[in-house]
Amino acid sequence: MSEEAFMQRTVTCGSLRATDEGKSVILNGWVHRDRNHGALHFINLRDRYGLTQVVVDDDASAELQEVAASLKLEYCIAVKGIVRRRPDSMINPDMATGEIEVKAEKIEVLSQCAVLPFMIDDECNAKEDLRLKYRFLDLRSKGMTDRIVLRHKIVKAIREYFYKTDFLEIETPTLIRSTPEGARDFLVPSRIYPGKFFALPQSPQLYKQLLMVSGMDKYFQIARCYRDEDPRGDRQLEFTQLDIEMSYVTRDDVLAMMEDLFNDVFKKVLNIDLPKSFKRIAYNDALNTYGCDKPDLRFGLEMHDASSFAAKSTFNAFLEPLKGKGAVKYLVAPHKDGFDYTRKYITELEDAAKVYGAKGLAWMKVQEGKLSGGVTKYFAGLEEEVLATTGAKDGDLILLVAHDNWKKCCNSLGAVRSKLGADLKLINEDEFAFCWIIDFPLFEFNEDEGHWEAAHHMFSMPQAEYIDTLEQDPGAVKGDLYDLVLNGYELASGSIRIHDIELQKRIFRICNFPDDVAQERFGFLLEAFKFSPPPHGGIAPGIDRLCMIISKVNTIREVIAFPKNTAAMSPMDDCPAVVEPSQLNDLKLQIVQEEK
Amino acid sequence: MSEEAFMQRTVTCGSLRATDEGKSVILNGWVHRDRNHGALHFINLRDRYGLTQVVVDDDASAELQEVAASLKLEYCIAVKGIVRRRPDSMINPDMATGEIEVKAEKIEVLSQCAVLPFMIDDECNAKEDLRLKYRFLDLRSKGMTDRIVLRHKIVKAIREYFYKTDFLEIETPTLIRSTPEGARDFLVPSRIYPGKFFALPQSPQLYKQLLMVSGMDKYFQIARCYRDEDPRGDRQLEFTQLDIEMSYVTRDDVLAMMEDLFNDVFKKVLNIDLPKSFKRIAYNDALNTYGCDKPDLRFGLEMHDASSFAAKSTFNAFLEPLKGKGAVKYLVAPHKDGFDYTRKYITELEDAAKVYGAKGLAWMKVQEGKLSGGVTKYFAGLEEEVLATTGAKDGDLILLVAHDNWKKCCNSLGAVRSKLGADLKLINEDEFAFCWIIDFPLFEFNEDEGHWEAAHHMFSMPQAEYIDTLEQDPGAVKGDLYDLVLNGYELASGSIRIHDIELQKRIFRICNFPDDVAQERFGFLLEAFKFSPPPHGGIAPGIDRLCMIISKVNTIREVIAFPKNTAAMSPMDDCPAVVEPSQLNDLKLQIVQEEK
Repeated sequence: MSEEAFMQRTVTCGSLRATDEGKSVILNGWVHRDRNHGALHFINLRDRYGLTQVVVDDDASAELQEVAASLKLEYCIAVKGIVRRRPDSMINPDMATGEIEVKAEKIEVLSQCAVLPFMIDDECNAKEDLRLKYRFLDLRSKGMTDRIVLRHKIVKAIREYFYKTDFLEIETPTLIRSTPEGARDFLVPSRIYPGKFFALPQSPQLYKQLLMVSGMDKYFQIARCYRDEDPRGDRQLEFTQLDIEMSYVTRDDVLAMMEDLFNDVFKKVLNIDLPKSFKRIAYNDALNTYGCDKPDLRFGLEMHDASSFAAKSTFNAFLEPLKGKGAVKYLVAPHKDGFDYTRKYITELEDAAKVYGAKGLAWMKVQEGKLSGGVTKYFAGLEEEVLATTGAKDGDLILLVAHDNWKKCCNSLGAVRSKLGADLKLINEDEFAFCWIIDFPLFEFNEDEGHWEAAHHMFSMPQAEYIDTLEQDPGAVKGDLYDLVLNGYELASGSIRIHDIELQKRIFRICNFPDDVAQERFGFLLEAFKFSPPPHGGIAPGIDRLCMIISKVNTIREVIAFPKNTAAMSPMDDCPAVVEPSQLNDLKLQIVQEEK
Repeated sequence: MSEEAFMQRTVTCGSLRATDEGKSVILNGWVHRDRNHGALHFINLRDRYGLTQVVVDDDASAELQEVAASLKLEYCIAVKGIVRRRPDSMINPDMATGEIEVKAEKIEVLSQCAVLPFMIDDECNAKEDLRLKYRFLDLRSKGMTDRIVLRHKIVKAIREYFYKTDFLEIETPTLIRSTPEGARDFLVPSRIYPGKFFALPQSPQLYKQLLMVSGMDKYFQIARCYRDEDPRGDRQLEFTQLDIEMSYVTRDDVLAMMEDLFNDVFKKVLNIDLPKSFKRIAYNDALNTYGCDKPDLRFGLEMHDASSFAAKSTFNAFLEPLKGKGAVKYLVAPHKDGFDYTRKYITELEDAAKVYGAKGLAWMKVQEGKLSGGVTKYFAGLEEEVLATTGAKDGDLILLVAHDNWKKCCNSLGAVRSKLGADLKLINEDEFAFCWIIDFPLFEFNEDEGHWEAAHHMFSMPQAEYIDTLEQDPGAVKGDLYDLVLNGYELASGSIRIHDIELQKRIFRICNFPDDVAQERFGFLLEAFKFSPPPHGGIAPGIDRLCMIISKVNTIREVIAFPKNTAAMSPMDDCPAVVEPSQLNDLKLQIVQEEK
């Protein structure tokens, strides 16, 4: 064949300008808008690159008129015509091609369109599941198209950074051995080995460490990762991470590389100059000041220790926690014109605090230079000190949380801070506020199972000063861990890794993996560590989340071409699905029938 | 922390030159070679970037001497020292850093190395399974490292081509619905939906077509694909393909884009100028001339139709096939000094032919201007004609295959051609010979199941002239299909796709998918085709195979960091593996026990 099957475009719908006047062109695209004024037809033709106005003049041939009249929204058509300037009064300065139109000479319908389930429009208010069922139409909207293009640009800029800095992109396997966090592994049976299973990786962690043992030195991969867990929060069963590992580095090398990377990406993609280095906040300080380990630094509302004055109050709810390991913390919600700190609103703030364990939210208003309301009565004689310490002014609201657990105290007041930041509109939506959280605890105690476990993962290096005494007080050990936080989201987690087999075994033991179990689960990593692993470390930013933040949308589903829905299934191809009995027979598997 | 944990490198092992003389440097790497001459120690230190000679002089401190003496092969060390020129007699021109050495002042052992299972060496003749078990060591060899680096460069060059040509890289899901080629789908159960399954994609085919319906216009992805099938040939359970789809294109657009891509990649990666366009060979011509649809064009040995003289012979084995749809074909194996066409060798050739269905391989030698031996006796009086037609000269061997099936005739003689090409060393190993195979049949008859099926896949467009009469003679229909062939390997398959729902349904029906079954299996594609799909087409080169050919190795396992072995399992992490009963409970699955 290869005779021309249809009128193929010579230009895209985003390219024509006034300087193209007089040219004969062919356009291919979809009918985006369609207006008929008697025998005069205006067609807005759309492709990925833009919109072009096509006009069928009222003196066009009967045949052309007939085709034009038959067009419906979203028909896919080819138009042959002549570029002409629009009359001055018709010039559309908001449209890249707004100075011209194409006078149609021939229109060919390439394919027709059924009745649309929703308008191809960003203001489409179809339910998300309907959008996902017809994702191939939803993606035609400008918003979705723009986000897919933006994601492409972000990933491109990331790769270009690594291309110029000697990193190797290496693919790691996705059919691997099920690992100890196995409870969330997707299992993959194989007909070749009935009764045995591969697992899909939750991350390429072990493989990237092996690549360092292999001498690959600087590795990256845009890797698909998997987690078989109940849908909660904004998660997908499969997600994409930028996986990075480097040999012969310290923490500061990894941090500097990442700062350099994000400077590059934000400059290229958004033409934004980020700070050359990002603020570093120790984990404890982040909790104390922002109430969480992923603070949104686009606003202040910093939290403070209230113990200096709370300890002198007569309020038992403050006094009790301060006797033990508890804390009393406060923040000052500033006066804002037109925003009333009503009892009802304060109750909303309290509800936010209670989610994190606070039993209540104490408050005092400042009015005409004096404290009033709430817990003021417990601060008799201390008003001047409270005002001086907090710096609260007329119209401000002092909010306090007390708890006998320091972290719960911080988290609870942190939730209040977040709500206030949003409600007081303190957030500049155009800002990208990065920071590092460092000096994380290496272990946390699993109350349910009664043993220590890794706060991040078991391959992270304890900070040097704790190495000799790990076992004595695991809770006190700080790790060489770092999180990159952007606008209140954890964007990346990383660490310097252990490269000493004995130290690795000690960590396993503390995390309740005796040597034999560790050998069973991690044998090949331990084996590799016998063969001179280099010092190494890495990090892994989430690509979906990064694209979501940059796109200023609220869910990663908006930056994924074909996501699963909130119920972790796909409305478009209706999967997961029942399969043929023969397929299960091949796998020597059967489904356990539930008893009624 | 972040005090310096070890002596961090200031340069890599590949970077120092004579101009660096006198500099104080730190190197990190592995002990590649190690020679002691009394108190004088030479250490070849290796990293990904190269080798540097480190010298511990005989007047070094006792402490340094002691560390140097303790080093063993593959220890990971840090060396601080001064760059000095080597004595002229010691300069190594084969080594990038061969003009210098580093006089060690301090050596720190970063990690020790156990007894190696094999030498880190390209001449290592360890069995492949041992190499794969210790892949993290195997990858340290120069050969493996070079191939991983080369693969990175190839994929980088590919991406850079698409970056500059307006293609969007879009990730498609890998947890999808099981498709009709379901017999080879990997199934993935999910604890969220017990009894239901996702499938891993054999390719993103349907999704890339949906992206065209979505208006994404030009798409690419370096995509992981999966096939759960018994190991045969050089296959992996998971493999990587460059997936490409374009809207509003004809076959020639796709071919031109691919030629442009490979010109770019070969120039960038190998500095090789490929022909601007690649030879195009119709499927029938490829069979007739080379005996297969993936001809190695690095050598000639073309096959020809022998019927003009075979029909006049008295040899029944030639005469019978020519009465029906059969064929008699020949090629001329040229005289080569030192290479004897012995009876034994001809039997080897015959064995190659028989694999493809030939009952025998006929032959005649040319000696002193006359035919002799083999089937010569059947050509009485025809000798001049045979010599004139074949052009065979003294010392040449005429080889003939007859078969009542044209394709088997071609394939059988093609196998002879391939073996001769290799044995006569006709192949220039430095050459990259690309060609296109076009005009493939759209359908082939599945003898076992008694119905037609798609030769490529069911979404490929029949050539225009056949569309009206598809059902009358499916075997005669040529499709708008194309394969890219490189050095005898099928590198990529592609086609212009159907974008008409009625035509698509006709194809489904011919392939024994009645409408209701097609709807069940392909409902979402058929649904999408109701909404104005654009004309589109694409192709998908195999990345593993491309890297293998460019690397001049014989298996894709040599260009994959962590491949499965020939038994489709991983000796390194010993998977697939048995999993915990609790994991299967969560999935509501149980393993069917084999009856003894």
